[in-house]
Amino acid sequence: MEVNFSEIAKKAKAASKKVATLSADVKNKALLNIAKNIEDNKERIFAANREDLSNAEILVKDGKITQSTFNRLKLDENKMRDMIQGVKDIARLDDPIGKVLLKRELDEGLVLTKTSCPIGVLGIIFEARPDVITQVSALAIKSSNAVILKGGKESVNTNKTIMSVIQEALKNTEGFPDNVLTQVFSRDDVAEMLKQDKYIDLIIPRGGNSLVKFIKENTKIPVLGHADGICHIYVDESADIEKAKNIIIDAKTQYPSACNAVETILVHEKFKYKEELKKAITEAGVEIIYTPESWHKEYGEKKLSYKEVSSLDEAIEHINEYSSGHTESIITENEENAKIFMNSVDSSGVYHNVSTRFADGFRYGFGAEVGISTNKTHARGPVGLEGLTIYKYTIEGNGHIVKDYADGVKSFHHRDIYNQLP
Amino acid sequence: MEVNFSEIAKKAKAASKKVATLSADVKNKALLNIAKNIEDNKERIFAANREDLSNAEILVKDGKITQSTFNRLKLDENKMRDMIQGVKDIARLDDPIGKVLLKRELDEGLVLTKTSCPIGVLGIIFEARPDVITQVSALAIKSSNAVILKGGKESVNTNKTIMSVIQEALKNTEGFPDNVLTQVFSRDDVAEMLKQDKYIDLIIPRGGNSLVKFIKENTKIPVLGHADGICHIYVDESADIEKAKNIIIDAKTQYPSACNAVETILVHEKFKYKEELKKAITEAGVEIIYTPESWHKEYGEKKLSYKEVSSLDEAIEHINEYSSGHTESIITENEENAKIFMNSVDSSGVYHNVSTRFADGFRYGFGAEVGISTNKTHARGPVGLEGLTIYKYTIEGNGHIVKDYADGVKSFHHRDIYNQLP
Repeated sequence: MEVNFSEIAKKAKAASKKVATLSADVKNKALLNIAKNIEDNKERIFAANREDLSNAEILVKDGKITQSTFNRLKLDENKMRDMIQGVKDIARLDDPIGKVLLKRELDEGLVLTKTSCPIGVLGIIFEARPDVITQVSALAIKSSNAVILKGGKESVNTNKTIMSVIQEALKNTEGFPDNVLTQVFSRDDVAEMLKQDKYIDLIIPRGGNSLVKFIKENTKIPVLGHADGICHIYVDESADIEKAKNIIIDAKTQYPSACNAVETILVHEKFKYKEELKKAITEAGVEIIYTPESWHKEYGEKKLSYKEVSSLDEAIEHINEYSSGHTESIITENEENAKIFMNSVDSSGVYHNVSTRFADGFRYGFGAEVGISTNKTHARGPVGLEGLTIYKYTIEGNGHIVKDYADGVKSFHHRDIYNQLP
Repeated sequence: MEVNFSEIAKKAKAASKKVATLSADVKNKALLNIAKNIEDNKERIFAANREDLSNAEILVKDGKITQSTFNRLKLDENKMRDMIQGVKDIARLDDPIGKVLLKRELDEGLVLTKTSCPIGVLGIIFEARPDVITQVSALAIKSSNAVILKGGKESVNTNKTIMSVIQEALKNTEGFPDNVLTQVFSRDDVAEMLKQDKYIDLIIPRGGNSLVKFIKENTKIPVLGHADGICHIYVDESADIEKAKNIIIDAKTQYPSACNAVETILVHEKFKYKEELKKAITEAGVEIIYTPESWHKEYGEKKLSYKEVSSLDEAIEHINEYSSGHTESIITENEENAKIFMNSVDSSGVYHNVSTRFADGFRYGFGAEVGISTNKTHARGPVGLEGLTIYKYTIEGNGHIVKDYADGVKSFHHRDIYNQLP
């Protein structure tokens, strides 16, 4: 099937204008219809998933995909239940659109309002996990954005089936426009998507380091996400040994392939319990690597780099040099040192006596996330609904012209009626 | 002089970490010192400016620069006073850094805080106006960002002198770090700056359409700004003729080369006073162009495109197709139509019965602006201090690990202590 990608993108743009003005009520009905239709069609989805899994089994045997990719591909009753619940949860969240962020009387009868609005068209590129479709679709609908999704080829049958179940639900939602969600399938579609800077406003890649790097190198569209997750834990001279052990073992072993797992620990050379710490880490099945070449390394498995530092400042400098800007933690009983660390480390998450694994939209209470951003603009850290919005300024007046202010006939008084900032 | 640009950018990055932690007090002292030192050295600055002007006179005669570029280059007592006052005004604004945007107890003793912080290193590329240096430098200092500035070659002497006056003031400010502000001069420096995505976090171009387009095409660094300013005014069937006349004439003639000047007017075909309106516009010295080819046009002079539309919807569709997303206005006495227009038009500013010329950071009460953004992410519309900030998440805990939550030993309660959102 020949697909003209710019036609798809143009239709998505047109749909984005329509979905932008939907009421919260219509959006929430659409979400609840989706949840119900997935529930009603779960056997159809499982059947499609079994087809993908039997194809993937061969790929695993041939060494073309890893066992962990295979596992992410697999939908079971638990994942299905979470998927359905996730959509219902998003329906219950506050509408992120139309929030007044600032209301200011510029002069008599001249009122400026800053209101949250959708970004427009999102391009989402994801790998194995088919459950991403429902989460991303639900977040896009709730935030009144249109979205073009491209999933991994291993899950193509599951993806197609889930999307058609979602589209059926949207067709049955009165007032919901067409073309808000579009799925594309071929590898060429990724290249085409990256060219559509006229129509696509934001690309969100969810996948491995090499996918994200490829996307960042090959598009002029803003990209939200992260390539590396090189997280650090600094064990200060005054750290509590029990906290240090528990936190490091949690941050490395609870889910070693997560982007928020710790990769490097920096230990103050005067920390009294450093041998005990190393012993505990090793006993937890974690291999400690001592070479400086490893400081750039994201292991994704039960290994971590170890470096001794002579001061808090050296730890901060090391982190600001080697970190990917994701999440770092300090273990210390010294409040002053914690404060310096948290002010000076330039990452999206900076923690005190806490595992780096807390960096997550659900744990932060955002209800859901499209991913974790290490960008320095727009949105940083776990990105939920708020990161899928921007704002516009409106002014209500009564024939006001600039000339009167330039000539000094009138002047601004800038009186805030409401300002979100404290 | 051989300059290694990545060394400059690296030093700016190091400086950005230092300026990030300065107190509001040190930043404000630095700003007041700058204002005073400019005041004390204004004759030196005027002398440098006279040198640039006498070189520029030849360029005007040779037709290499326009008279309006020459005018923007010229510093007089008024511009000098505004420059000094502008820096003092920024000193008086609230510190945009360290503001708590969200404080949420995730669980007992586990507190998430979202706090505003600087972006890092800004790259500012601007054309003729030398007064941009003080405004941008002051905004960067106040928002704790480091900045690399590249000005136009026509104002090189003025730029150098202003920057050395600013640097003297910073040297005399106790606790203010080096390398927060750096100025570069050659055309090659622009190309080099655009390559430094490792060190520079945001590029802000201030200048003509072709400069901005060149920059957007040639960098992976996020760019904040706008290329085109194709603003529309829609005159609804129920418009008040006096408001329509005044607003359109103001929006076109008060400063025709401004980006927020109107370029196209859309008039409802049933608007009773359309002939009277056209007559008034023509009498104000504005040429009306009736060809569809002109709908893409940014005139920058006393010309505007005119189109009749048969409905509000047609006006909205036209705007969403041809607008550059800058600022649009509806003239109507029909509140319902105004509401539809303001919800459906996807531009950074959407006004009702107001001149498009109000799109400006000073008029919005932001104190100053680095420019006006037509981006759909990060910051939109006039960008003041807030657009030069991002946020980070910190968590304070007491040995909290994720395993306890994954195992169901503990659970999140997500209790907001403070949330900026209503």
